[in-house]
Amino acid sequence: MKTLVLSSVFLALSSSAATLTESETKQLTQLKNTALQSDLSYQVLESLTTEVGHRLMGSEGDRKAIIWAQAKMNALGFDKVWTEEVTGTFWQRGEAQAKIITPYPHDVVAIALGGSIATSDEGLTGEVAHFETLADLIAAPDNSLNGKIAFVSYQMEEHIDGNGYGPAVGTRVGGAVVAAKKGASALIMRSVGTDNNRIAHTGIMRYEAGVKKIPAAALSNPDADLLVNQLKRNKPVNFYLKLTSHTDPKVTAVSANVIGEITGSEFPDEIVSIGAHLDSWDVGTGALDDGMGVAMMLASAHHIAQLPIRPKRTIRVILFAAEEVGLLGAKKYMEVHEKNMANHIIGAEWDFGVGKIYKMTSGVGKESLTAINDLAKHLAPLGVELSNDNNAQAQSDMSVMSAAGMPSMNFAPDGTKYFDYHHTENDTLDKVNADDLKQATAVYTLFAYFSAQSEINFRK
Amino acid sequence: MKTLVLSSVFLALSSSAATLTESETKQLTQLKNTALQSDLSYQVLESLTTEVGHRLMGSEGDRKAIIWAQAKMNALGFDKVWTEEVTGTFWQRGEAQAKIITPYPHDVVAIALGGSIATSDEGLTGEVAHFETLADLIAAPDNSLNGKIAFVSYQMEEHIDGNGYGPAVGTRVGGAVVAAKKGASALIMRSVGTDNNRIAHTGIMRYEAGVKKIPAAALSNPDADLLVNQLKRNKPVNFYLKLTSHTDPKVTAVSANVIGEITGSEFPDEIVSIGAHLDSWDVGTGALDDGMGVAMMLASAHHIAQLPIRPKRTIRVILFAAEEVGLLGAKKYMEVHEKNMANHIIGAEWDFGVGKIYKMTSGVGKESLTAINDLAKHLAPLGVELSNDNNAQAQSDMSVMSAAGMPSMNFAPDGTKYFDYHHTENDTLDKVNADDLKQATAVYTLFAYFSAQSEINFRK
Ligand SMILES: [Zn+2]
Ligand SMILES: [Zn+2]
Ligand SMILES: [Zn+2]
Ligand SMILES: [Zn+2]
Repeated sequence: MKTLVLSSVFLALSSSAATLTESETKQLTQLKNTALQSDLSYQVLESLTTEVGHRLMGSEGDRKAIIWAQAKMNALGFDKVWTEEVTGTFWQRGEAQAKIITPYPHDVVAIALGGSIATSDEGLTGEVAHFETLADLIAAPDNSLNGKIAFVSYQMEEHIDGNGYGPAVGTRVGGAVVAAKKGASALIMRSVGTDNNRIAHTGIMRYEAGVKKIPAAALSNPDADLLVNQLKRNKPVNFYLKLTSHTDPKVTAVSANVIGEITGSEFPDEIVSIGAHLDSWDVGTGALDDGMGVAMMLASAHHIAQLPIRPKRTIRVILFAAEEVGLLGAKKYMEVHEKNMANHIIGAEWDFGVGKIYKMTSGVGKESLTAINDLAKHLAPLGVELSNDNNAQAQSDMSVMSAAGMPSMNFAPDGTKYFDYHHTENDTLDKVNADDLKQATAVYTLFAYFSAQSEINFRK
Repeated sequence: MKTLVLSSVFLALSSSAATLTESETKQLTQLKNTALQSDLSYQVLESLTTEVGHRLMGSEGDRKAIIWAQAKMNALGFDKVWTEEVTGTFWQRGEAQAKIITPYPHDVVAIALGGSIATSDEGLTGEVAHFETLADLIAAPDNSLNGKIAFVSYQMEEHIDGNGYGPAVGTRVGGAVVAAKKGASALIMRSVGTDNNRIAHTGIMRYEAGVKKIPAAALSNPDADLLVNQLKRNKPVNFYLKLTSHTDPKVTAVSANVIGEITGSEFPDEIVSIGAHLDSWDVGTGALDDGMGVAMMLASAHHIAQLPIRPKRTIRVILFAAEEVGLLGAKKYMEVHEKNMANHIIGAEWDFGVGKIYKMTSGVGKESLTAINDLAKHLAPLGVELSNDNNAQAQSDMSVMSAAGMPSMNFAPDGTKYFDYHHTENDTLDKVNADDLKQATAVYTLFAYFSAQSEINFRK
């Protein structure tokens, strides 16, 4: 058995020599050990969640986060740190009040969807019209919901790769427009979430030009269950909703992408970008979404900055503004850097805490797949398996850059529990497993070092 | 193997023949099947939580629950149904607002402890004095907390038998008195709970004559963590608390024990009592605490009432009022029935949902242990093991009757998850596992039938 083990180690070393030299491979192994032993990413996340808290685009927390991020980058040994302004609107949540009035009165837990208008100051009351899916709501005749409150009770499914999100999120994003077209006075929905806590899930919703804007809110999942149970009794169910959320059209919200670099020692203009979004919803402390990503990127860059020599290429950490309210930071980044996109050698974002990374999927040129295989061999001992697909976009903000031709990597975590906490008051530090965070930080550290030290053209 | 199985069945039957006849044993087996196949207890619980909701002593929900319970008993075929008035005070929760003001502002989730006075309308502000345990708070010098807010951060441990509750609950019940003696202006504490949700746990607290009353609140566990993390930075932490809870001393709250019987066919004066408390805290819908118990007792009695002949002894279902605010219903029951306690043959309460029953402990005379062993053999296939101890009191309200000499049984569930939800907004129907509820209902059904059909004097 000993011989077998030795020979497989030899195979791994000899084949990865195609991309990295022996001494570079040694460096990589040392980096892996450093990252796995360090609790730096956890400490950075603790700092962000404790000292800043949540950070909705345009809010006081957002401003603090921008200052915090620059200070951290400087303290962690980045070579260059700067910001690029991002502007947009500032939506304020206000208060949400909801109750079942008849047949059996209950106060229920509700949260305004991001971007929702307010109800009147008195709130609104209406009979609940129940739809099990968005498709059912779409199928309702025009004017059939006049004066009613549309309720979609679709329950998100839990899956390791989070694929239950797609079928569920349509109601949140577009449900209010559909309901308004049918004459509804408001939309309420079961939260897009897999938990059973009395905590509702927010997230962005959209209005459509020419369609009446109506207030939209999510109920906590146990409250949605209760409402369904009342509806089953076949008596009219009357519901009360009050939201005081609003956007002041005269106010321009100012935020910024925060960018820091470990400057390349040989090819400083060639950029390996790693990123996360710095903003969060205004609930919880944005520990998972996306504080984890912020912390991982800062710690990864720091570990690499501690090496005696900078890697050949530049590692650029991009902390995007205003992801939650519509990828505003990513769009602004493209505006500023589109002409330089060819120099963006490869990129990977993280926006899918919490849980261990178990899979990586590349989106690179065919010739580069040998190098990707080499990288995968280094990551395999961390429990990361290489997907057979080679069609990945980077996550969230960086998907915009992938679409513009940037070669990309996508690291997939066990997302089974993510949607228990996503966009809720429950998105707090205690949900983060310190060991999983170490593993994920090690993965990004190795990805960044490997990509920056190799001379591979990932477009080919 | 077949022979072995047959002979052990034979042994079980022949030894249980000591307590029940063969036809009674057959009846018991049929009852077990009925209870295990029926979803009646779940349906009853769904009805209570959907149509009534929470039911704090003296509240509108409490009044509804009393009407609901009598109607259910009548509908389920009870022979006698009546109420016995219970009076007390009516505490109202009002609103709770809490935040960390410095060094890093955060809104935090807090809940008033049951019975707490309000702060002033403006709320109160003070520097946080941190104690890891109640013992540490007790050890603080007099006047050392003048103008400060005492914070006890003790974290309840999770155990299958819930034994982490005892060491944690002292702060909730008595912490405010201790803190006031040291000069504190308020008490805040980590919730008595094992979850990590942004939902705080309430529960009764006490004041002491001659000691200044101060407001008392629990923080959700993630918020307690956040506060501890801020305190670790060794800067003064200032905290704001506003409670509007109050008790109007002029108002007498009127509630009632609701009692129903399946009258014994041979010894109607001999009472086998099973019970639960009908009241709940004013958060969630009291599904686990103690709606489950209510539903189990009603369904158990119904299953027995469906038999062609009533068991020999009377089965009395007691749904106690005002358990949460100090066992007021139990005390009233003793007042009314103390003289008749000798006719209370044996009793068991349920006040410890959620989870499967895995253990039973008796508290009976020595001669009765043979019968208890017989009962245990019938319950063993349900996964219930007989404890070697014979010192049990009944749970909660009925512990008062145990103390007055009533022989008792205590059925212990897997309580690992109970304190995730206990006394919170999260105590809702979705937390109940329908199969576990069937098992628990079957256990109580068999216990009640066995005790009522046998002629054992459990005092001996
Ligand atoms: Zn995100
Ligand atoms: Zn998000
Ligand atoms: Zn209870
Ligand atoms: Zn209780």
